[in-house]
Amino acid sequence: MAKWVYSFGGGTADGGSELRNLLGGKGANLGEMCKIGTPVPPGFTVTTEVCTYYYENGETYPGELKDQVRSAVTKLEDIMECKFNSTEMPLLLSVRSGARASMPGMMDTVLNLGLNAETVEAIAKATGDERFAYDSYRRFIQMYCNVVLDIDHHNFEAILEAHKAKHGYKLDTEMTGDDLKIMVKDYEAKVVEMAGAPFPQDPWEQLWGSIGAVFGSWMNPRACTYRRLHSLPDHWGTAVNVQAMVFGNMGEDCATGVCFTRNPATGENAYYGEYLINAQGEDVVAGIRTPQPLSLAEKETAQTDLPSLEEVMPSLYKELCDIREHLEEHYTDMQDMEFTIQQNKLWMLQTRTGKRTAAAALRIAVEMKEEGLIDEKEAVRRVDPGALDQLLHPTLDPKAERTTLTKGLAASPGAATGKAVFSASDAESWVERGEKVMLCRIETSPDDIGGMHVAEGILTSRGGMTSHAAVVARGMGTPCVSGAGDLEIDYAAKTMKIAGETISEGDVITIDGSSGELFLGSVATIQPELTGDFGKLMTWVDGIRTMKVRTNAETPLDAATAIKFGAEGIGLCRTEHMFFDPKRIIHVREMIVAKTEEKRRAALDKLLPYQREDFAELFRIMDGLPVTIRLLDPPLHEFLPHTDADYQEVAEAAGITVDEIKTRAASLHEFNPMLGHRGCRLGVAYPEITEMQARAIFEAACIVAGEGKKVLPEVMIPLVALTAEYDMLKIVVDDAAKAVFAEKGSEVEYMVGTMIEVPRAAFVADKIAEGAEFFSFGTNDLTQMGLGLSRDDAGNFLKIYLDKGVMEVDPFVSIDEEGVGELVRIAAEKGRSTRPDIKLGICGEHGGDPASIHFCQSVGLTYVSCSPYRVPIARLAAAQAALGVKGEQNA
Amino acid sequence: MAKWVYSFGGGTADGGSELRNLLGGKGANLGEMCKIGTPVPPGFTVTTEVCTYYYENGETYPGELKDQVRSAVTKLEDIMECKFNSTEMPLLLSVRSGARASMPGMMDTVLNLGLNAETVEAIAKATGDERFAYDSYRRFIQMYCNVVLDIDHHNFEAILEAHKAKHGYKLDTEMTGDDLKIMVKDYEAKVVEMAGAPFPQDPWEQLWGSIGAVFGSWMNPRACTYRRLHSLPDHWGTAVNVQAMVFGNMGEDCATGVCFTRNPATGENAYYGEYLINAQGEDVVAGIRTPQPLSLAEKETAQTDLPSLEEVMPSLYKELCDIREHLEEHYTDMQDMEFTIQQNKLWMLQTRTGKRTAAAALRIAVEMKEEGLIDEKEAVRRVDPGALDQLLHPTLDPKAERTTLTKGLAASPGAATGKAVFSASDAESWVERGEKVMLCRIETSPDDIGGMHVAEGILTSRGGMTSHAAVVARGMGTPCVSGAGDLEIDYAAKTMKIAGETISEGDVITIDGSSGELFLGSVATIQPELTGDFGKLMTWVDGIRTMKVRTNAETPLDAATAIKFGAEGIGLCRTEHMFFDPKRIIHVREMIVAKTEEKRRAALDKLLPYQREDFAELFRIMDGLPVTIRLLDPPLHEFLPHTDADYQEVAEAAGITVDEIKTRAASLHEFNPMLGHRGCRLGVAYPEITEMQARAIFEAACIVAGEGKKVLPEVMIPLVALTAEYDMLKIVVDDAAKAVFAEKGSEVEYMVGTMIEVPRAAFVADKIAEGAEFFSFGTNDLTQMGLGLSRDDAGNFLKIYLDKGVMEVDPFVSIDEEGVGELVRIAAEKGRSTRPDIKLGICGEHGGDPASIHFCQSVGLTYVSCSPYRVPIARLAAAQAALGVKGEQNA
Repeated sequence: MAKWVYSFGGGTADGGSELRNLLGGKGANLGEMCKIGTPVPPGFTVTTEVCTYYYENGETYPGELKDQVRSAVTKLEDIMECKFNSTEMPLLLSVRSGARASMPGMMDTVLNLGLNAETVEAIAKATGDERFAYDSYRRFIQMYCNVVLDIDHHNFEAILEAHKAKHGYKLDTEMTGDDLKIMVKDYEAKVVEMAGAPFPQDPWEQLWGSIGAVFGSWMNPRACTYRRLHSLPDHWGTAVNVQAMVFGNMGEDCATGVCFTRNPATGENAYYGEYLINAQGEDVVAGIRTPQPLSLAEKETAQTDLPSLEEVMPSLYKELCDIREHLEEHYTDMQDMEFTIQQNKLWMLQTRTGKRTAAAALRIAVEMKEEGLIDEKEAVRRVDPGALDQLLHPTLDPKAERTTLTKGLAASPGAATGKAVFSASDAESWVERGEKVMLCRIETSPDDIGGMHVAEGILTSRGGMTSHAAVVARGMGTPCVSGAGDLEIDYAAKTMKIAGETISEGDVITIDGSSGELFLGSVATIQPELTGDFGKLMTWVDGIRTMKVRTNAETPLDAATAIKFGAEGIGLCRTEHMFFDPKRIIHVREMIVAKTEEKRRAALDKLLPYQREDFAELFRIMDGLPVTIRLLDPPLHEFLPHTDADYQEVAEAAGITVDEIKTRAASLHEFNPMLGHRGCRLGVAYPEITEMQARAIFEAACIVAGEGKKVLPEVMIPLVALTAEYDMLKIVVDDAAKAVFAEKGSEVEYMVGTMIEVPRAAFVADKIAEGAEFFSFGTNDLTQMGLGLSRDDAGNFLKIYLDKGVMEVDPFVSIDEEGVGELVRIAAEKGRSTRPDIKLGICGEHGGDPASIHFCQSVGLTYVSCSPYRVPIARLAAAQAALGVKGEQNA
Repeated sequence: MAKWVYSFGGGTADGGSELRNLLGGKGANLGEMCKIGTPVPPGFTVTTEVCTYYYENGETYPGELKDQVRSAVTKLEDIMECKFNSTEMPLLLSVRSGARASMPGMMDTVLNLGLNAETVEAIAKATGDERFAYDSYRRFIQMYCNVVLDIDHHNFEAILEAHKAKHGYKLDTEMTGDDLKIMVKDYEAKVVEMAGAPFPQDPWEQLWGSIGAVFGSWMNPRACTYRRLHSLPDHWGTAVNVQAMVFGNMGEDCATGVCFTRNPATGENAYYGEYLINAQGEDVVAGIRTPQPLSLAEKETAQTDLPSLEEVMPSLYKELCDIREHLEEHYTDMQDMEFTIQQNKLWMLQTRTGKRTAAAALRIAVEMKEEGLIDEKEAVRRVDPGALDQLLHPTLDPKAERTTLTKGLAASPGAATGKAVFSASDAESWVERGEKVMLCRIETSPDDIGGMHVAEGILTSRGGMTSHAAVVARGMGTPCVSGAGDLEIDYAAKTMKIAGETISEGDVITIDGSSGELFLGSVATIQPELTGDFGKLMTWVDGIRTMKVRTNAETPLDAATAIKFGAEGIGLCRTEHMFFDPKRIIHVREMIVAKTEEKRRAALDKLLPYQREDFAELFRIMDGLPVTIRLLDPPLHEFLPHTDADYQEVAEAAGITVDEIKTRAASLHEFNPMLGHRGCRLGVAYPEITEMQARAIFEAACIVAGEGKKVLPEVMIPLVALTAEYDMLKIVVDDAAKAVFAEKGSEVEYMVGTMIEVPRAAFVADKIAEGAEFFSFGTNDLTQMGLGLSRDDAGNFLKIYLDKGVMEVDPFVSIDEEGVGELVRIAAEKGRSTRPDIKLGICGEHGGDPASIHFCQSVGLTYVSCSPYRVPIARLAAAQAALGVKGEQNA
């Protein structure tokens, strides 16, 4: 017979931590705590398999469940020495959810279950405290109605307030047992009014109602949203934990509290917690009464007069300290615990791995390693690479006041404040005269690069996590909030409207790129402190990981920043980013409008010195590290003039008419530029472009090698779909190398390879590898093509997909392993089948995403490449991947 | 030792037809003819492997070649009983190319090789005909210089003309031996002038020069273009055939000619050929002298006074007739032969399978089967499915005069004449008043459908073979020339400029969609005659093929046409094509601008009756045949209003402002609509659209089933990339079915399945197949995404790709087997692994392409679906695929 119910309590348990998936986090921990002798109120866990069964079978239960619950309750009654629904001292129960991963506050809980018109009297008699009994009953009715019967708690709070008003009470505590007795009648009447039936008096009906409500709450919108945000699958399900109630509100010898074994904000190795005398757990969480500090030390820090538990109940405090040590030692991680003291007896209600800030995670991991509690590997496992991001950027001062206007996507972390400007050129001119600006755009384009570079932060109303704004901002380490869809930006008026406010050019605003929030005015920020702990952890990280970490960089600043963050080379230098400089763009445009190869070559000759100097500078900075340079990638129309003045300028430079240029521009128009004339297709059509770029690379390489530096250029041909494309352009590159080496009388080693970013390329990777010495997976484009999903357009419906659960993660954030990953796997295998030592890297946005980095490790990539600010994150994720830890585990 | 040279002659040969790939078509046939006793001038073949070696080794030859050629020449000398470079009767040679597939006139030939200042005298002495000897030498110098030394033949023709003028000659034949002797001196002087060296006198130098020139000509632009047009790979290479010269120009007892064993234009089983007395082969081909008919019968048909060979040389004519019969029997196919009569001895220079028109191919195949020469299967193999297309459309009368303006792409076959109009609405209004129009557009869009339907033909200046215009035109069977890039269309002026002409609205023009040509004015056309032969062949075809053939159709006319052509169901009904009707588009637009589900449903309710009636009509026509209906596919912005009046109308209908609609329209804009919010993504976002369409399908099915017809609806969900998308929409469809069946009190069988058109879908096809009963491969989109190639934008650079040989075939015309084919294969295998009897079809444009149909057979598809006019082609191609014949073999 299937076992659907697991009991715990009385120093024993049917299961512990080893059954986490089945019992959920809370149930497993309760069992585990029982096993190691922690005083836990006895109870039982209805497994997550019941939840799965429930949803797969039209919200019904397995046949055996009823009997198993009944006998588990009997076991409980035996341990607690009181009976469910007894008119002596009745057993009361709590019913709580408990999923595999913690989802705090997301699902429903019912306390004080088992109370009814008779048992409440029994409690009153047994405790001699009518007020406590009826207060418990009142709370139970309200909670049960809210959770099970869907009657909003305001209905009951209104009754409470009316009663207090009538008697002139200010505080709940002023109410007497009699008051509460009367009020319970009003509550019961309200139930009849709202539900059309009296409040259920049968405790068994109450129990099944509550279990059903917990399972039901697994699919409530809050819970679904939480899971989506934390990438937890719907099919895991929740367990239900039914436990004997213990009361922190039976009098002054009672208390309840929550505590952390270390400080979850700073990571300091000190007890950190709060409690309340004569209260139920919800009172601490609800924030109605001000909780008191646990220890004297905390009391001092908090500069409060409220008495600490250490003073009030010293022996129980001591017991709690012992348990703290015992639990942390047992779980070898910082614990988040809930306890209740009932009539001077301490009960531990829950322990779980405590959530912590990035700073705390780092400090705890490093200190636990130094305390000998965990080893280096475990310390590395303990820090969430995603959270590390927070440590590398300025953050909003948590104490600062703020007026939130809206929330978009947390596109590039860090906080920034500046004056709103609505165009890139305004950004540049404002900054020139000494202002700090926030660039506000509906969306950004490569034309905006100048303005984006000088802005403190970037705000867009359109575009997703991998929109142009987001990608470029992350690359530059500039805070960015993208896709704030509520913003109505009016370029003409230079204003934007949001939440009733109109922000005009020059108005100060603040964004938090880590949360996606937009604030009115200035909000104080604090600078990151990369303490010694960060350095220590990174040393351990580098000792563990097997994949290299490179950076995507094209400017000297980016390259230098990346080196500072530990980059081991450039994995992607996008040469076209070098084309937008005003001194160059004119020649690029001349090249585009040229009608003959001769004129095209003339324009390219003017670009050559610029490109050569760009590459030389990068080679100098990366001295001895490999530099992968991608040949021109975007369609030519991205470089076209926009204004009439621009057209005129190009016409003069190229010696043709504006009309001719406009005709050329029209002929370059594309319906789907993403799938258009770009990448290696440009080189196939105009090999002289490839030749110029290759020449610039090799000339620069020879120059820098001549300066005594080591140069390792890797020339990368983009958007290859056909073996013949690659082979044709490789010849152009090799010929340029030969020519340059002959002219310079010196040679440098170099590699030629390709991006794998078109699905077809994966299938012919074995043939491409005959001529290609490396592959770099362009998983941005591979995702766009593999999923048929335009990155620039998907924003709107991806949100719907995530909301409806059709997709679990944004495939532009974490690699889609089933589809895009399969293409990567096929290409990697085929590439190695031809060339066993082929260098394999990834240079899409996924290269900086921990989950994707795990995938990269699993398919045996040589390196990942990401934006400079994500290099430390990638290093940590790569180490965790080498250890076989999923990046999200500690989130 | 590798054998590079194969000899033939004297009743024996080293190899024949079985070595076609090695010896090339001509070489293999010469060998074969020798083997079966045909009188062939002896010679030898330098194999295609030498050509391959030549190009792979920097244009050098294998080491053993020289000796092998030398000994083959010796063999020749023995058979012909004369010596190369002999001053008695010297052996003269011809050197010709000969590739695996025939490439007539594409590569170089050298005749009379071996002549020099000494041997020419020997020839003069031996034949007693100085004039003949020097004329041969003159011709040889000219040809050799042209082919080997790259000296244009005009240089020599100028000398000839000057000489004739000087002597007052009108005809070449008036020149005496002395004249020619003098002229040869002038020729030799010209060679020194142009080449800087004297004409080579060493016959061996001449031979190697000529062999090199033939191999070199394999890569000349003409040959490359020819191969591209005929999908022949570059790596095949050509062989070189060196053969003893025989002379048709040694006197009046000499002749030369070409003949076909059957009429290549009509297929009539009658000798068809031309000859000239006292001439060399080139004279017949060059068209300088008017060739004479071979037989008396031909003489009568041609109504000429020129004497036939039958009259002039009756016994040789008889011998030729015997050879004709012998060869056709041996090769069991119509032969194209070249012969020479030297001093009353008949020599066969060549035989090969003769090219023929589509009509001839059909007639010959059917008649040969009926003559018992071949069986049904062979008859089916003999007709090129692509050529069949010619038989199904009106064609230009070959006798009609014409003025060609330009040439675009042969986008949809058939000829058409009409008055030029420059907008779809003009087309409609002109046709309403009784005009026949030619719709001329830069490119077409779904908005133009109305105008495209009424036009006689469609002409566009942009777009490729699978542009909107081309696809729709082929679907409608309307002739179309697309991508005529030279056209300058000016919508405002309602004119187009081309080749110095300005065509204004109303001017009559003609297009030939089978050749891509555009003509000024009217050109007479002839209607297709589907003779009994067509019907006979199709019966055999249907008995052989294993794949079903369906059609892509959404209108009753298309469906009925397809049935007439033998379609076995509808493989793709694109429901959105039904949305553009003026009565409906307003509701479509109301639906798009609706701000709430309720309003969207209200608009959809208005569309429902139209869709229901559409589907009912198709079900009636297809009575008993399956109908696959694809749910709404294109992005919603395709349906947006274009004019202010349209905007106003929608605003009134939807009860919102024009500004609100414009805002909505702007929000729907997409950068890459191909990868945007379309296909099943619409249904995921707005399930009510799917629900309406499913409801319309099932209501229609119930209605038509109620009329006693058999209805087999197959509901197809487009653009599925994720299993969850399919599963979600399948539920919507099934729920609609359940609801309709309950309302109607009756049920119809139906299937739900999906398009496989996103690469990712192939990888999860096993999971999708858990819920999908059929897959239809949308290879248009699969090609776009798999190759990262926008169909609408690729036109320009695909041409460059084909020209440069980076691609061998347009992947939108014939499926890219390496990439897209691999995705199809993976999906088919995965689909069958879950559901062994899964129905697999193809509904992209490739479904009507013979080469792609072969691929479909190889991966085991159940059916192909194509536009109505291509159904017979697909039937034939499917039969050939079942026989394992490549469709292009008989081209």
